[in-house]
Amino acid sequence: MQPDLLPGHLAASVLHNLRQVSPLVHCMTNDVVQSFTANVLLAIGAAPAMVIEPEEAAQFSPIACALLINIGTLTSERSVAMLAAIHAANQSSTPWVLDPVAVGGLDFRTQFARTILELKPAAIRGNASEIMALAGETGGGRGVDSTEEALCALPAALKLAQMTGAIVAVTGEEDYVTDGENAWSVAGGGALMTRVVGTGCALSAVVAACCSLPGSRLDNVASACQFMKCAGEQAIAASRGPGSFIPAFLDALYALNAEALI
Amino acid sequence: MQPDLLPGHLAASVLHNLRQVSPLVHCMTNDVVQSFTANVLLAIGAAPAMVIEPEEAAQFSPIACALLINIGTLTSERSVAMLAAIHAANQSSTPWVLDPVAVGGLDFRTQFARTILELKPAAIRGNASEIMALAGETGGGRGVDSTEEALCALPAALKLAQMTGAIVAVTGEEDYVTDGENAWSVAGGGALMTRVVGTGCALSAVVAACCSLPGSRLDNVASACQFMKCAGEQAIAASRGPGSFIPAFLDALYALNAEALI
Amino acid sequence: MQPDLLPGHLAASVLHNLRQVSPLVHCMTNDVVQSFTANVLLAIGAAPAMVIEPEEAAQFSPIACALLINIGTLTSERSVAMLAAIHAANQSSTPWVLDPVAVGGLDFRTQFARTILELKPAAIRGNASEIMALAGETGGGRGVDSTEEALCALPAALKLAQMTGAIVAVTGEEDYVTDGENAWSVAGGGALMTRVVGTGCALSAVVAACCSLPGSRLDNVASACQFMKCAGEQAIAASRGPGSFIPAFLDALYALNAEALI
Repeated sequence: MQPDLLPGHLAASVLHNLRQVSPLVHCMTNDVVQSFTANVLLAIGAAPAMVIEPEEAAQFSPIACALLINIGTLTSERSVAMLAAIHAANQSSTPWVLDPVAVGGLDFRTQFARTILELKPAAIRGNASEIMALAGETGGGRGVDSTEEALCALPAALKLAQMTGAIVAVTGEEDYVTDGENAWSVAGGGALMTRVVGTGCALSAVVAACCSLPGSRLDNVASACQFMKCAGEQAIAASRGPGSFIPAFLDALYALNAEALI
Repeated sequence: MQPDLLPGHLAASVLHNLRQVSPLVHCMTNDVVQSFTANVLLAIGAAPAMVIEPEEAAQFSPIACALLINIGTLTSERSVAMLAAIHAANQSSTPWVLDPVAVGGLDFRTQFARTILELKPAAIRGNASEIMALAGETGGGRGVDSTEEALCALPAALKLAQMTGAIVAVTGEEDYVTDGENAWSVAGGGALMTRVVGTGCALSAVVAACCSLPGSRLDNVASACQFMKCAGEQAIAASRGPGSFIPAFLDALYALNAEALI
Repeated sequence: MQPDLLPGHLAASVLHNLRQVSPLVHCMTNDVVQSFTANVLLAIGAAPAMVIEPEEAAQFSPIACALLINIGTLTSERSVAMLAAIHAANQSSTPWVLDPVAVGGLDFRTQFARTILELKPAAIRGNASEIMALAGETGGGRGVDSTEEALCALPAALKLAQMTGAIVAVTGEEDYVTDGENAWSVAGGGALMTRVVGTGCALSAVVAACCSLPGSRLDNVASACQFMKCAGEQAIAASRGPGSFIPAFLDALYALNAEALI
């Protein structure tokens, strides 16, 4: 099964909504990508806020439009705060998104990810190894690298979506996004994006922003992937390496418009 | 009341002092802006050091020229270390600066901010919502965004300065800086600066650096605001979006001189 | 004693090995430089992973090719996780590298550094003040700044290498790398690199990557220094200040080749 490409006009309409609403995203993410994640959200037109103290996290997620849970540098203390935020988000119907960084390879985060998988994430965004591990299939990457191609993980993504009710995005050279029944593929980007830390983590934050928008959540999540692929492709064309890619990528997200997406 | 613009020659003389002394700033700041804050201090000619373990924080703040307390990602553990650092700073007459990120909207940090407000900060730098909340007036922003204009918060800033003895800077499209009696306004910058995370937090670090300099503290704090507005304006002119703004801004701080300020 | 310059063809051959192996480096580093460290490793061709929870850190360091321990923002909790990772690394013969940020000046980290110095680091990378403090000589910098020139610390570096069995790199305007008997010097770079946070910390991560490679560890560590000096020099030539230096530096690391090193 090779899903159809997401039509550009769908992504363009989601971008329009995103810029109208400017969703406030409560980011509980790893130590490495905090600044880049915030800058990506700001560049595309959303608003980030990082709140991590357990009581405050539970107080804040109902105020936010969406909650991001990224387990890249999970600690015992942070897991308590994340649980508090997720429960509060669920009580207020704030959608929350899971980025299961390096799940499968490390026990503490794998157990935590399995626990919160039962708490009804709106979406899950990971690479092939991570999605396969969450779906209970073999895999296990090398840290945050995926050792599998995204298409190989599409069956696992379908299964995971059916298990959890979440939209599942498995990302790589090409991205695949499914609700367990239908699926979109998203093309673009380029290999240079894997030489910059946080492009995947920041995508998960944009997925969270888009989960708060009206309309089809499948289309919204796939559009988030399309925004990053499209801006990534433009930035690669404008840069000489991973260093100049970073400012070019944020500029491209800021300038992203319907024309580029269609 | 519309305060007078800070004269450029005052800011130029403070910049001269800053470059002579190269003050060492002990930064206890939030997880999102650590690197940007350090790079801003280095670019303008100061020296950053992030020390967070409670005993070390108390050992280090008396060695430093100034201490920055930013509560953006406050935790219970970090609040203990901050208190230790503030007490040690006060005993050694090291000036300390409060950046009350998102105060008013979240309980844990609001209580903490009220507690340390009694410990004689040398300066407070916040947006309109934060300054109004600290002064006990209604407000309450949306995370780190301010929902109020800076000029509306000038009465609150005057009141807060009188209550605490601190220089209060309320920043926004235009900045206002007061000691409770006199006030300066500072113009420049531009809207693009709100699309980059940490410009406000980094300003607070520069405010801390300037609080350690000789001369009028009111003029010193207003000059810190002027440095950022001036470099921001230059960087906006030289950039195509928030991505290219970041390197251009650090370059502009590095190259900042009397001519540009006057 | 003025050691000979590392021959460029040695560095070129180490770079070739690095790109072949793409070593996975387990980074336990300070809060300020996480993102820059990851981007430096990715740019030069290695792979970073930040894992900090104590059990996971012990589980991960045997999987990684090398472990980096940087004590810049050490806390009590983090020190427990670092010890667990070091012990696991030693049991699996994973080389580990110490970056003793600001050791000597602050008690908690100084005691911790002395403790782990007995756990057989493969390499130690610090500035003159840090190396002198670790070797038990007077020194003590101003935060992360070194108040001493690197060459003055070469005797301390030799002594520290003999004490610990580690390769010791003392870095500054010129770098010196020794195994306690032989030494290389490494030239290049420029003063602008001291106006950007994390160049030293990121070098320590590249040192860790190179410690995992076959061949002479002395040559490997000196080559890591050479990579950064060479890319730094190219980036300084291509930039207008510390802001534009950062992307230019990552681009230069990415494009680094034998020709530039020889």
